[in-house]
Amino acid sequence: MNLIYEGKAKKIYTTDREDVYLQEFKDDATAFNGVKKDKISHKGEINNFISSEIFKYLKENSIPNHFIEKVSDTEMLIKKVEIIKVEVVCRNIAAGSLVKKLGFKEGEELENPIIEFYLKSDELGDPLFTEEHIYALKLADKHDIGIIRKMTNYINTLLKKFFLQRGIKLVDFKLEFGKDKHGNILLADEISPDTCRFWDSLTNKKLDKDRFRFDLGEVEESYQEIKNRLS
Amino acid sequence: MNLIYEGKAKKIYTTDREDVYLQEFKDDATAFNGVKKDKISHKGEINNFISSEIFKYLKENSIPNHFIEKVSDTEMLIKKVEIIKVEVVCRNIAAGSLVKKLGFKEGEELENPIIEFYLKSDELGDPLFTEEHIYALKLADKHDIGIIRKMTNYINTLLKKFFLQRGIKLVDFKLEFGKDKHGNILLADEISPDTCRFWDSLTNKKLDKDRFRFDLGEVEESYQEIKNRLS
Repeated sequence: MNLIYEGKAKKIYTTDREDVYLQEFKDDATAFNGVKKDKISHKGEINNFISSEIFKYLKENSIPNHFIEKVSDTEMLIKKVEIIKVEVVCRNIAAGSLVKKLGFKEGEELENPIIEFYLKSDELGDPLFTEEHIYALKLADKHDIGIIRKMTNYINTLLKKFFLQRGIKLVDFKLEFGKDKHGNILLADEISPDTCRFWDSLTNKKLDKDRFRFDLGEVEESYQEIKNRLS
Repeated sequence: MNLIYEGKAKKIYTTDREDVYLQEFKDDATAFNGVKKDKISHKGEINNFISSEIFKYLKENSIPNHFIEKVSDTEMLIKKVEIIKVEVVCRNIAAGSLVKKLGFKEGEELENPIIEFYLKSDELGDPLFTEEHIYALKLADKHDIGIIRKMTNYINTLLKKFFLQRGIKLVDFKLEFGKDKHGNILLADEISPDTCRFWDSLTNKKLDKDRFRFDLGEVEESYQEIKNRLS
């Protein structure tokens, strides 16, 4: 097994199968483009569990994704894909940059979900950009983005329901997509409290990485709470 | 005459006609959201001249705009409109934020013009945003944005030709639109070296506000050069 990628929260290794990678979840947590760094105990284990459960649920609902199987507490086998350098954010309730950068009111329910695209670039700080920039930079074509928009909308419908049944509001979430060797677009990366905003549906208590970003305390407990509600 | 608006580069006054305003161009120059401030001698006069010439040319080519007539060195009469809080940027060649924020190569010709939308808000620093944000914030509807996109593309075609005939590459430009009392969308604001990037078509010498932004010298001379080529 060779380490072929190490990101802020995950490592990816080759396996003995050419089209299969091993994805390992780390306890490391970063925020504000790496300016804030720490570890969250058991995060790797918790996020591997949560991501696995969500990928299984999405697969059962016909969303093609890279998940093969969970193979240890912190590792899953995934299909090899080439990641499209576009982070896709879907928002149901205003929070984060919508509030800070665009003046939305935190907690405001959006009439329609908003899909945003961010350039996946640590160097440039993952800036917001638009479809026209994506095409000019040749990161994806119109056909790809059409599929990604449709998949994202459907994933949102599925996940909103999934989480609401577990007493959680899905405020927003970030997705990454990749292409397999046949050119099929698969949902990739992870879906966890690192990449979603989850609020308790009764109390609006934040149960996600915002607790780490803004030093709200009970960070590990909140990740664990999401895991418990999915168990 | 009552002053009803003072911006970074212009003042707007009421007149004795209910649907007519007076727009006065100032010598004040600001950059980086007001952090850099100075005066450029004769800028008000030059930009009033250039904007008047361009608005006349666009009107002759069926682009509805707020220009009525130039009434003094630094003033023009304009139709009263309510400004839509969306700044529209159209780009033909990569420069400015495309380079700084998204990693494009300065001077790279774009295969297709890129149209971008920015939230018109001094307080928030005029951030880039998307059509979906515009609709969620109710700044304009789909019909309005459809018209604005079409007008912007046509203005770009007209202005590229207009400037090239005068030895100038139209690198990019910012437009603002407003609605008159009948709900018609009119091109408004100004079109000048403050709001466009102009490069000499032979030497690529910058003939616009970038000379002020980046202390390149010959600021007034460059504004004057654009005026001369339009005279």
